Amino acid sequence: MTYPLLALDVATNTACVCLINAEGKVFTETASPGKQHSNTVLPLLQDVLKQADLTWGDLKMLALGQGPGSFTGLRIAAAMLAGVNASLKLPIWGLSSLAITAMQTQSDKPLWVLEDARAGEVFVGYYQQGERLQDDVCKCWSEIQGMPTDSFAAQQEPAITLPDWHRLPLPMDRAQAMSLLIQTLWDKTDHTAHTPWIQPVYLQLSQAEKNLQHV
Amino acid sequence: MTYPLLALDVATNTACVCLINAEGKVFTETASPGKQHSNTVLPLLQDVLKQADLTWGDLKMLALGQGPGSFTGLRIAAAMLAGVNASLKLPIWGLSSLAITAMQTQSDKPLWVLEDARAGEVFVGYYQQGERLQDDVCKCWSEIQGMPTDSFAAQQEPAITLPDWHRLPLPMDRAQAMSLLIQTLWDKTDHTAHTPWIQPVYLQLSQAEKNLQHV
Repeated sequence: MTYPLLALDVATNTACVCLINAEGKVFTETASPGKQHSNTVLPLLQDVLKQADLTWGDLKMLALGQGPGSFTGLRIAAAMLAGVNASLKLPIWGLSSLAITAMQTQSDKPLWVLEDARAGEVFVGYYQQGERLQDDVCKCWSEIQGMPTDSFAAQQEPAITLPDWHRLPLPMDRAQAMSLLIQTLWDKTDHTAHTPWIQPVYLQLSQAEKNLQHV
Repeated sequence: MTYPLLALDVATNTACVCLINAEGKVFTETASPGKQHSNTVLPLLQDVLKQADLTWGDLKMLALGQGPGSFTGLRIAAAMLAGVNASLKLPIWGLSSLAITAMQTQSDKPLWVLEDARAGEVFVGYYQQGERLQDDVCKCWSEIQGMPTDSFAAQQEPAITLPDWHRLPLPMDRAQAMSLLIQTLWDKTDHTAHTPWIQPVYLQLSQAEKNLQHV
């Protein structure tokens, strides 16, 4: 398992890609905000390849921001990458989209990532410099209100006000943060476990599962 | 523009593919009903290639059942095919999913295809042996009730009862019908107009557009 690696994330409104070439040099592309992922993702991938002066056949590995995030967006991204990989047959590394957001803060302290998941729910990640301190989960916003206040990052506005929490800015470009996450986790990751196809991570439980949780 | 051609349709609950090789021989694969398209489509494409003893690089053209049909399913299929085609750069021919259903009837007379589109609406096609007699449109079911009764075909149960209409059976396998549609339309189609990416056809109007129609 080695570079060049091409990575894609669509968990936010704005799709972004990064490519790390064999020399470790990073190239990035970011879509115009609000454009439908189905129209923008493929040109982004092609643009970043062109920027790095590589072709599809030069790639050794793919990566996908697996979510949690928008159901349709993630499925479309996973389907497109699966299509790209139908002939390439490369390993695909699944990245947490919350971990990418955590990297955007450039903070070296543990921090929460809290993304509104609609229906009164929130995707919750806990990270320090890209490393997962707890598994990503989906909770009710009311559960967050019961937690000790802390620092958090978010792409979207939280669905509730979190008065004593400290919201961190996101100074780093998301595509750049994704490349930094990949480089940070590279040596700590079992790259032999990657498969040539990948499932999005939805995390949201069905109502039946929720009911069981509260028994 | 020539064979081998690989075609995919996901407009029904059951994804299907067909491959027509350079000698005009047809190979088909059909997913198990009800399986999520995102998991089944790629193996189907790979299975039909294997069956025909071809590789991705042997293909000269792709085709996609463009809809009208399920929004998410069509977008996923279009995204996957776009991904596959990122390196192949083949022309993609858009087929009406309603035309494929019309072919399944094996009728040589003009017939309607009426597929429930939810929200009181119906996708309407009018075909004779694969040839489009009217553009595919989206109407209200109540408009169908006002039309002269005729023969129709449908994959799904109509949302209303159509007492004096004659519902045609669908004796032909859908993947087989798709290959027959391709062969029937081949000489009548401007293959130079195909592009290497394709948009799904949704047909359903926004509420604002509907309001304008009724002014």
